Amino acid sequence: MTYCLALRLDEGLVFLADTRTNAGIDNIGTYRKLHVLRPAPDRVFVIESAGNLATTQEVLDRLDHDVRTPGDHESLLTVTHLFEAALYLGRVSQSVVQSHRDALRVTGADATATFILGGEILPEPPDILLVYPEGNYIRASDDAPFLQIGESKYGKYLLDVAVTAKTDVDTATKIALGSMMSTARANLGVGPPYDGAILRGDGLLNLVEFRVEADSPTLAQLHEMWERHLFNAVDDLPNVMPSEIDLS
Amino acid sequence: MTYCLALRLDEGLVFLADTRTNAGIDNIGTYRKLHVLRPAPDRVFVIESAGNLATTQEVLDRLDHDVRTPGDHESLLTVTHLFEAALYLGRVSQSVVQSHRDALRVTGADATATFILGGEILPEPPDILLVYPEGNYIRASDDAPFLQIGESKYGKYLLDVAVTAKTDVDTATKIALGSMMSTARANLGVGPPYDGAILRGDGLLNLVEFRVEADSPTLAQLHEMWERHLFNAVDDLPNVMPSEIDLS
Repeated sequence: MTYCLALRLDEGLVFLADTRTNAGIDNIGTYRKLHVLRPAPDRVFVIESAGNLATTQEVLDRLDHDVRTPGDHESLLTVTHLFEAALYLGRVSQSVVQSHRDALRVTGADATATFILGGEILPEPPDILLVYPEGNYIRASDDAPFLQIGESKYGKYLLDVAVTAKTDVDTATKIALGSMMSTARANLGVGPPYDGAILRGDGLLNLVEFRVEADSPTLAQLHEMWERHLFNAVDDLPNVMPSEIDLS
Repeated sequence: MTYCLALRLDEGLVFLADTRTNAGIDNIGTYRKLHVLRPAPDRVFVIESAGNLATTQEVLDRLDHDVRTPGDHESLLTVTHLFEAALYLGRVSQSVVQSHRDALRVTGADATATFILGGEILPEPPDILLVYPEGNYIRASDDAPFLQIGESKYGKYLLDVAVTAKTDVDTATKIALGSMMSTARANLGVGPPYDGAILRGDGLLNLVEFRVEADSPTLAQLHEMWERHLFNAVDDLPNVMPSEIDLS
């Protein structure tokens, strides 16, 4: 299982991904699902992945290979818009799945993967796109400027309520971690460490990466404060039923 | 879509269900999914349903018919433990699905339904059970004393964090509504009015039903306070990254 999200704010982009993987319930590992690619000085990409781990790794290897191999083939160097990068990523993803389809069909394994592709190709503004296993993509909406892949339901309410394009990057990062912690608490398939990246939308391609470790004091503090606020909220809420009705 | 939940507390049981149904995206209706049955003075049952609406309605009609029809057949009158009621409900559910299977196979429709069965058969203590379409059942665990059916992921975190067997009934009702509101906010397939029921575990079978209407001031107040607390929580959280790192 996996949970990755990306936010598109007026101030820039925020990415967050968990690292837990499992092949069956007794083969649980830790793998990066957030990858930063800087193939040229005028562009930076962040790719988050959910789905088949072998597929996502081969897709990333092929992307890297295409950049490093001279020639006039398509690569992250040749695209001039993020949507072209998304379509290219989608084609690579389909090609990888196709190359293993017959072998995987025998075991019934699902080799597909879903990606969030974000970043900036100058002079275009930064953006985030969700690339489906079928190779097509969607953008985040203006009203709900975020994308999620993997176990997206547990942490959606907080994003729905708290994130708008006007949210500042620092607040958005806390909200993203809140959404991630909610998901990890409710689903054992999602867990720390969490990888994050922030791209300020200042046209300087200033991308900062960070990792929140499982035993970090910051995470413990976030957990404790988050749950305390939830308890306070519950305490402050009015009773649903007046107690006189309750006794009827 | 549907979201129903039930909590098993030391003080008693709390049930909550939404009422939104849809057959396709352009046929959206409001139906009760929480049903109270009092077939005899020594027992009360609450049944919550998710899945095929026709199946759940026919199951309830058959349960009622079995109670009203004289004879020595099994019914909610003849069972002496809740687990027997759960197995009986499961058999009726399977029988209903079986009777329409051939006709539904043509359209590919899924006729199955999942139920939460709760209540009390004196002198047994109250309990809640989840009845699968296959006819078997599970209880809530001691650590997480709640059951959910339907769209269970959106509102699970709050239950995981806030509900224990020691939670009082009033607080648990607020938490249940918080979980319901989170789900409705994040998924259009779940919506008000919300039907609730509370069974005090005092051996008096004192079951109180309530409904929270979409335009009720209580719901508006709960919404407003809930979201305000979330914003306050986000504001109070420490920044994930010190700003000096942010500028690197």
